[in-house]
Amino acid sequence: MSASDPIDTNRLSRCTSALILHTAELARLGQTPATSSNFSMRLDALRAVITVSGRDKGRLGPEDFMVVDFDGQAVGSERRSSAETGLHTQLYRRFPEVGCVLHTHSRNQTVASRLFAEPGRLRLEGYELLKAFAGNQTHETAIELPILRNSQDIPALAAQVERLLDAGPLWGYLIEGHGLYAWGQDIAEARRHLDAFEFLIGCELDLIRLGAAR
Amino acid sequence: MSASDPIDTNRLSRCTSALILHTAELARLGQTPATSSNFSMRLDALRAVITVSGRDKGRLGPEDFMVVDFDGQAVGSERRSSAETGLHTQLYRRFPEVGCVLHTHSRNQTVASRLFAEPGRLRLEGYELLKAFAGNQTHETAIELPILRNSQDIPALAAQVERLLDAGPLWGYLIEGHGLYAWGQDIAEARRHLDAFEFLIGCELDLIRLGAAR
Amino acid sequence: MSASDPIDTNRLSRCTSALILHTAELARLGQTPATSSNFSMRLDALRAVITVSGRDKGRLGPEDFMVVDFDGQAVGSERRSSAETGLHTQLYRRFPEVGCVLHTHSRNQTVASRLFAEPGRLRLEGYELLKAFAGNQTHETAIELPILRNSQDIPALAAQVERLLDAGPLWGYLIEGHGLYAWGQDIAEARRHLDAFEFLIGCELDLIRLGAAR
Amino acid sequence: MSASDPIDTNRLSRCTSALILHTAELARLGQTPATSSNFSMRLDALRAVITVSGRDKGRLGPEDFMVVDFDGQAVGSERRSSAETGLHTQLYRRFPEVGCVLHTHSRNQTVASRLFAEPGRLRLEGYELLKAFAGNQTHETAIELPILRNSQDIPALAAQVERLLDAGPLWGYLIEGHGLYAWGQDIAEARRHLDAFEFLIGCELDLIRLGAAR
Repeated sequence: MSASDPIDTNRLSRCTSALILHTAELARLGQTPATSSNFSMRLDALRAVITVSGRDKGRLGPEDFMVVDFDGQAVGSERRSSAETGLHTQLYRRFPEVGCVLHTHSRNQTVASRLFAEPGRLRLEGYELLKAFAGNQTHETAIELPILRNSQDIPALAAQVERLLDAGPLWGYLIEGHGLYAWGQDIAEARRHLDAFEFLIGCELDLIRLGAAR
Repeated sequence: MSASDPIDTNRLSRCTSALILHTAELARLGQTPATSSNFSMRLDALRAVITVSGRDKGRLGPEDFMVVDFDGQAVGSERRSSAETGLHTQLYRRFPEVGCVLHTHSRNQTVASRLFAEPGRLRLEGYELLKAFAGNQTHETAIELPILRNSQDIPALAAQVERLLDAGPLWGYLIEGHGLYAWGQDIAEARRHLDAFEFLIGCELDLIRLGAAR
Repeated sequence: MSASDPIDTNRLSRCTSALILHTAELARLGQTPATSSNFSMRLDALRAVITVSGRDKGRLGPEDFMVVDFDGQAVGSERRSSAETGLHTQLYRRFPEVGCVLHTHSRNQTVASRLFAEPGRLRLEGYELLKAFAGNQTHETAIELPILRNSQDIPALAAQVERLLDAGPLWGYLIEGHGLYAWGQDIAEARRHLDAFEFLIGCELDLIRLGAAR
Repeated sequence: MSASDPIDTNRLSRCTSALILHTAELARLGQTPATSSNFSMRLDALRAVITVSGRDKGRLGPEDFMVVDFDGQAVGSERRSSAETGLHTQLYRRFPEVGCVLHTHSRNQTVASRLFAEPGRLRLEGYELLKAFAGNQTHETAIELPILRNSQDIPALAAQVERLLDAGPLWGYLIEGHGLYAWGQDIAEARRHLDAFEFLIGCELDLIRLGAAR
């Protein structure tokens, strides 16, 4: 198979529709402020569909998506893909089972990414919702959400992500002052992971506001 | 009457529709994050209809429900019911007047369940909305919302709930790091109790954030 | 004119429609939790239409309203009106120019009513939005929102309100642990006053949370 | 060209529709409480269309707009324009590239405008979303959002704004106890700037609530 083979247009259309639906919901929840954030789904073994950067995520149409190969290069289009595309495609390249990558900028995500930048991770423990992360069967566990320093050098960021992925199972990470990446085998699972992180980050921030010891 | 008797399909259909409506509203309010939470209604003296676990509560259809007997066993289906089904059916088994059980995971519920885990209860006093709990005629009263330690051992949790029910009138309880159970004679009353708890928990957390003495 | 004269059914119908619209909006904003709150409009010199108590304010229909005279007695109906009706009708009786009374229970209103119960008033100063209150032409003013102790004795509450009304211009008041009453010459003005109080109360609570000196 | 030349009615209609859409969204987000806020778009080199003051911004129709010249005088209408019109038209007069001015009153904007009134500015630094402001290519920068003292003397306010505009690039400013002005070359850019300010102000307030050093 080659990246110049014809695309399965039915799959492309289904992926685009699913991304429009979920992106509009996330926009209404305030997680894509000021045209930020990007969203993608795997099309096949070599290509993914991803949002074009700079569009209002609450009003996407089919024309707001482009196809890229797993080096992040545009396929069948003259468009230049967003620099952040590389953080999506590294996951598709490395994990054949990853089918969807969601990157959002909620206020909780941005604030937590700055507040916990120093330890470089947010520990989540003692929540029933830990069972939302694929593979977890119990709340009697803990997971750590890593926080990377922000950089405009996407290959350098991607290299840091590779080291995190080497170290063990991971469902997402934060970038400081920037937002969250979460993924899954399909859009439903990626969204479940995203929603679980958003909820648990919010609980942790609330517990700090309420003066609970950490 | 036996659990293998035919189901009243009109009642089943009305219950499913009512549950879909209320569940979608609670999902929009952020009370069912990441496919969590479950919801049920009594069908008759022996059976209830309950949400299948693991589904997105904002997008339920009739196929996302199953019938169980009051031991929590699936009726007319090969599906295995969720472990938490036992916390619903114990209420139907014990109280013929209970017609609906709602279990949600709002951020306020989760945060309060951790913050007050040590006393094991949240005292609610001095609110007009205490009159929302069936049987209360005045705000000049106080009620206590019990908080159970979380456990994956549902029968052990259910046994703790039985002891609470022995001790006096109860409209709901929290499980630590997990969420709220609330119930009523029909879905309108169960929802009124749920909404009153959610509101009053939120007020209590706000008062702490504002430095008001407790 | 007498309270047994025929009602202007066109006006009744217009009032009911306007109340349904505004009440549904306030319900979606979380200001009518657990079937609380009530809403009315003047029909003529002797009568008003008011919500029947105990209904879900997000789902009202024309059958959820009743007509009362200004002593709070039901007109053309066997229904008993809510006890709180007296707090609506005292305003219609006293002020011919009052056309609408809105009573809500937002979390901010409830929390502020407890936090400022001791001074018995919340001072609002230095906000452009003070110009939203009918008669104010500048932000260079201050208004005081009075807070009454809650009571199940509505005539006693009403007597306290009369004394407040004697003391000077008033657009609304809080009842401790209970909520807000706001009014105006029509539903648009009453809603503007309600929204301005809700917004300014929220600002005051935020400033306290942020450690700003009061 | 003269301010009495015929208006391009197609452009007027497109501008009005776009303003209605964005204003309704901002109203739903709670940024236009109690009929506050105003919104405008450039029609041509001499005129703009602006919301009539005192209307509910969640329910605007075409009749809720008027045309003004860049001295803020009504064109083709007997209406008196709002005093704040001058803060819109000074931007159209000075910058031919400005196509839209949005003025909102969110709670975050109002609270931040009071909290930072003393330094007279809010510094925003270390956020990926700084790239939302036209011309910024990196998050490795800082911008300052100026805060003006509130005044009913709009020409005096406008003179202060002129001095800020002389001092360097600016995408918006706050007025104490009042709200935010933001602008851009079209409504999409103005909205992106507005949403970025609202988001970043919210992050800054959250960081203070969480006790993070500033």
